[in-house]
Amino acid sequence: MKRALILALVATTLLAGCGRGQRVARLPAPGQLYTADGQLVQVTKLKALPAPDGSIPAPANARAGNTASPPPQFQYLYGSGEADALSRQAFRALVNYATYRRASGDSVVLKPGATLDAPQWVPCEGKPRAAIFDADETILLNLGVEALAARNPGAPFDAAQWARWERTGAKGVAPVPGAGEAFAALRAAGVAVIVNTNRSSATAAGTVATLKAAGLGDFTPDTDLFLSDGPSAKDPRRATIAARYCVVAMAGDQLGDFSDLFARFPTSAARRRAVDAAPIAQLWGNGWFVLPNPVYGAGLKGSYDDVFPADRRWVDGGAG
Amino acid sequence: MKRALILALVATTLLAGCGRGQRVARLPAPGQLYTADGQLVQVTKLKALPAPDGSIPAPANARAGNTASPPPQFQYLYGSGEADALSRQAFRALVNYATYRRASGDSVVLKPGATLDAPQWVPCEGKPRAAIFDADETILLNLGVEALAARNPGAPFDAAQWARWERTGAKGVAPVPGAGEAFAALRAAGVAVIVNTNRSSATAAGTVATLKAAGLGDFTPDTDLFLSDGPSAKDPRRATIAARYCVVAMAGDQLGDFSDLFARFPTSAARRRAVDAAPIAQLWGNGWFVLPNPVYGAGLKGSYDDVFPADRRWVDGGAG
Repeated sequence: MKRALILALVATTLLAGCGRGQRVARLPAPGQLYTADGQLVQVTKLKALPAPDGSIPAPANARAGNTASPPPQFQYLYGSGEADALSRQAFRALVNYATYRRASGDSVVLKPGATLDAPQWVPCEGKPRAAIFDADETILLNLGVEALAARNPGAPFDAAQWARWERTGAKGVAPVPGAGEAFAALRAAGVAVIVNTNRSSATAAGTVATLKAAGLGDFTPDTDLFLSDGPSAKDPRRATIAARYCVVAMAGDQLGDFSDLFARFPTSAARRRAVDAAPIAQLWGNGWFVLPNPVYGAGLKGSYDDVFPADRRWVDGGAG
Repeated sequence: MKRALILALVATTLLAGCGRGQRVARLPAPGQLYTADGQLVQVTKLKALPAPDGSIPAPANARAGNTASPPPQFQYLYGSGEADALSRQAFRALVNYATYRRASGDSVVLKPGATLDAPQWVPCEGKPRAAIFDADETILLNLGVEALAARNPGAPFDAAQWARWERTGAKGVAPVPGAGEAFAALRAAGVAVIVNTNRSSATAAGTVATLKAAGLGDFTPDTDLFLSDGPSAKDPRRATIAARYCVVAMAGDQLGDFSDLFARFPTSAARRRAVDAAPIAQLWGNGWFVLPNPVYGAGLKGSYDDVFPADRRWVDGGAG
């Protein structure tokens, strides 16, 4: 009975598959039979197909209307009270450190040639105090463009779209919770606020407008806003800033916001070990301040073996 | 030239698609041409196909072997240097607050009947000082069970499996970076370390063994380890602890680790606003300390409209 139905459908399929005028094979349509993994199966509610490059389309709920849900890492960073609290906590720690706990000492910018194992610091030499902040997902939440990214989280980074975002996205951002209050407190304490970002100098006007729209203040390129001319390395710009200022704190969502040396590690496990090892481990919340970002960046790497160490595996004995 | 190539491939495809003995239509194979959205495209690196019911298979990397990659939120929390640094920063802020900055004042536990709008605090009345910590993803990284969860991140929470994990998972955990150092510093400063967790009192022995295996110390149920007898509300246990101790700091990865009042909000947007509004906004990093967790919990909620406010939308003008 079932078999007969299947054979009937097979016949239909063969005709459909070889109809004249058909120039190429068609993708399976709802109701069509096909073989997968050697099994005879039927497409009943086809919602999406692999892209030509074989990549998997975003889940239906990530492409459906606004009543559907973004992927969890977007819900967390842009929507959760927890991430909001985590950001306020980071800015509070930075302001406490920069305004009260750190009256003297060197800059928190590594000297050229210094290593993570034996860090050396640019001296302050009576320079005016400053704190250095990354922009994106450190002081700016890029809601407008990330709402698009959340629809297709597997898609590769679109540099051209991001450049358009830098130019025209001012109305689509919000400050990271606590950033505005931190800037006000630092400025009141005589600590200059400097932004060091990999946004492009070609879109400087858009970034200035975006920082202003987020309520973070008026920034001037090469004075308190340092932009990229191409390479994503930030050490050269950190050196320029540390030559003018005593840098009492740095904040970012990526390890590259503190030193380009972190880019040298071959695996995420080695990179994490470097963060966790003395003397660098002592800097977190103590000169270097981290903002949460599980949505993009160099931290989102690693195989199962990198992320879940073999010596921490668990075999579920089951209900037995 | 290109056109000729395409036509040649079309011919091949037609033959392949209508070869004798073929019982049903086949799904596109690497190199095969097909039409999608009216366009002639070619499958070059087919990695996965829609399931018969049309649902999208989990990305290959979520189902493949240990050389594949876990979902981004797992890579971030368990594998990234950024999350490691964020955790160390949180524990450093807590220790600074509990040991130096806070010599006097009430407990940071809300009084029964207090509200988030008008918080009132349990008085200290000369009680010995203590800090309260949640366990899972606050001081313990549940690597063993989360490595399994990462293989099927969309699956509903398996309470039976989690109970088995509480009983037998001791060898599969690691301390959250900085937790061990924070516990040592607090104990040295005469601040008792108390754990308030929703792990079950039925699996107390397993949780005691797990905390010990993580290097966090020896805990005793109802003395410095408070477990759940069913309900996930933590306020009653907080009240018990605050009756014995002057609670100078609390830490958790969920808002429920600070007050059950956060569970009352109907949407994630309302919940986030409550975190961000005075006077509660002043508590983050200032008595209440948050650890990152984008992998599970009450923060992973919200529609596109909840997560991405309508007034922050951006329309990409495109390359034109």
